[in-house]
Amino acid sequence: MAQDLVIGIDVGGQTTKCGIVDARGTVIAQTVVRSDTYNEVEPYIALVAEGLNRIIAEAKAEGLIRGIGVGAPNANYYTGTIENAVNLTWGGTKSIPFAKLLSDAMGGLPVTLTNDANAAAVGEMTYGAARGMKNFIMITLGTGVGSGIVINGDVVYGHDGFAGELGHTCAVRNNGRSCNCGKTGCLETYASATGVSRTAREWLQLSDEPSTLRSLENISSKDVYDAAKEGDKIALKIFEYTGRVLGEKLADFIEFSAPEAIVLFGGLARSKEFLTEPITNAMNANVLPLWRGKIKLVYSSLKESDAAILGASALAW
Amino acid sequence: MAQDLVIGIDVGGQTTKCGIVDARGTVIAQTVVRSDTYNEVEPYIALVAEGLNRIIAEAKAEGLIRGIGVGAPNANYYTGTIENAVNLTWGGTKSIPFAKLLSDAMGGLPVTLTNDANAAAVGEMTYGAARGMKNFIMITLGTGVGSGIVINGDVVYGHDGFAGELGHTCAVRNNGRSCNCGKTGCLETYASATGVSRTAREWLQLSDEPSTLRSLENISSKDVYDAAKEGDKIALKIFEYTGRVLGEKLADFIEFSAPEAIVLFGGLARSKEFLTEPITNAMNANVLPLWRGKIKLVYSSLKESDAAILGASALAW
Repeated sequence: MAQDLVIGIDVGGQTTKCGIVDARGTVIAQTVVRSDTYNEVEPYIALVAEGLNRIIAEAKAEGLIRGIGVGAPNANYYTGTIENAVNLTWGGTKSIPFAKLLSDAMGGLPVTLTNDANAAAVGEMTYGAARGMKNFIMITLGTGVGSGIVINGDVVYGHDGFAGELGHTCAVRNNGRSCNCGKTGCLETYASATGVSRTAREWLQLSDEPSTLRSLENISSKDVYDAAKEGDKIALKIFEYTGRVLGEKLADFIEFSAPEAIVLFGGLARSKEFLTEPITNAMNANVLPLWRGKIKLVYSSLKESDAAILGASALAW
Repeated sequence: MAQDLVIGIDVGGQTTKCGIVDARGTVIAQTVVRSDTYNEVEPYIALVAEGLNRIIAEAKAEGLIRGIGVGAPNANYYTGTIENAVNLTWGGTKSIPFAKLLSDAMGGLPVTLTNDANAAAVGEMTYGAARGMKNFIMITLGTGVGSGIVINGDVVYGHDGFAGELGHTCAVRNNGRSCNCGKTGCLETYASATGVSRTAREWLQLSDEPSTLRSLENISSKDVYDAAKEGDKIALKIFEYTGRVLGEKLADFIEFSAPEAIVLFGGLARSKEFLTEPITNAMNANVLPLWRGKIKLVYSSLKESDAAILGASALAW
């Protein structure tokens, strides 16, 4: 039997999801280990390797693994390093040779590393909504806004390996919200789950319209979604605004790379029943006439629990 | 002797520049024909072919021409057509099979077509300031703002062949200037030669500061440049503002494709002594910290009179 399996690993701040994936995109075994037990990378890598060896044994996959793909924050595809990942307990302000460390721990298996949004784009192209597409932009709407750009069938890494930071393009030029990155007005301060919470807090303060959201201590984007489902006017306006800000920036991105589609992914994308219309309207109002009504807006078709592993694993083929 | 020459053609609204170029990028023969004599494309193509055959004969280049590269407005690389080019007398609102018509008129020589800014980017990469670069963004600052984006050594054409319309990304979201494209706030209404004229007219009206520009009937970007050279305060502020608006958008573009450099080209780029500082400052203030101070801002190094021909010809290699 040929070597026809790969491993996908999704490194998050709290947990690391690992899975063995076959050529059809089925996750045949998986495990989760904690990401935040250690302040140094070496014991963390040992923990991951232990988990991988366990599921390899369980799946009787010894000798069948072709390679390992990893999606991680601040990961550089060219160098295989994770740079200044302040959200990882072992990340800190340094450069970690992650691909090399993991490969060494796994008996020399080749390890390919990229950031989580790029991994999601590769997964979508290999197994999901972007199958068959050669030009699309993946936008991940989670705690932040990530992006993976595919041009001519290849993920765009740029000169230094860090291309595709669309969450930090400027959505609001004057008096914009301050972002974790140190700038103001970044798209991710508006079009992410935390952006929706911020919009909710601001709008509840600015108006005295009644809203079920007023009774909540902390408002999550899920709370806003639930309220919108009940017809809460402020909640509906929050999604209208969020969609408009995102759609305006998507128009800019379309003018850059003329993609066939925009693919939306992540927790906030689950609110698509309230987002699709304002996004589409703003995108079409702000794009050149030649693209008006022509760029598809699609949502990830991958099973959410598998998507991160699948995306990362697709890198390893 | 091998076939080691190419032809470059730059189609402008008024004139069409044609040249024969050797492998080192020397224009060994050239001619200019009018673009706007005819309302139909066929007699115009005949005029171009006549000019080309004349310089081929002059240069004794019969049988040595490998192909023809054309830079033209609204040109599509994939289809070889010119689409809805309302600024060309024979363009109108239709699709013209330009590459096929010219190839037929030139005895079947292969013809490659792209828009003028993409041609400029190819020229810069082949002969100019971007030689050796695989990731850069070319911005042409002329009557309008054009762009040619190079990623991994290839011009980005996108799904439909029209990628790279950075002049029509949004620079001013609210109350922006109206653009010929039908939108408002487009970068080209601020950072082009006509944008500089508009800024001058607006600012002279808003302030009563003395300025030599007040004595002029029509203010060109060259007039603003001349006034700035004399230390005119309003003229200096106009460049400061123009550079800032451009630099802010360049930051967005860097976050998209992480280029090694931004290359500026075109008439307005000649005012670099007043533009470089505000562009650089705004670019660095608006880009993520990881790119701050790292992206080169360079100016085209091609001889202006040859640049358009060279850029187009580079497509034919």
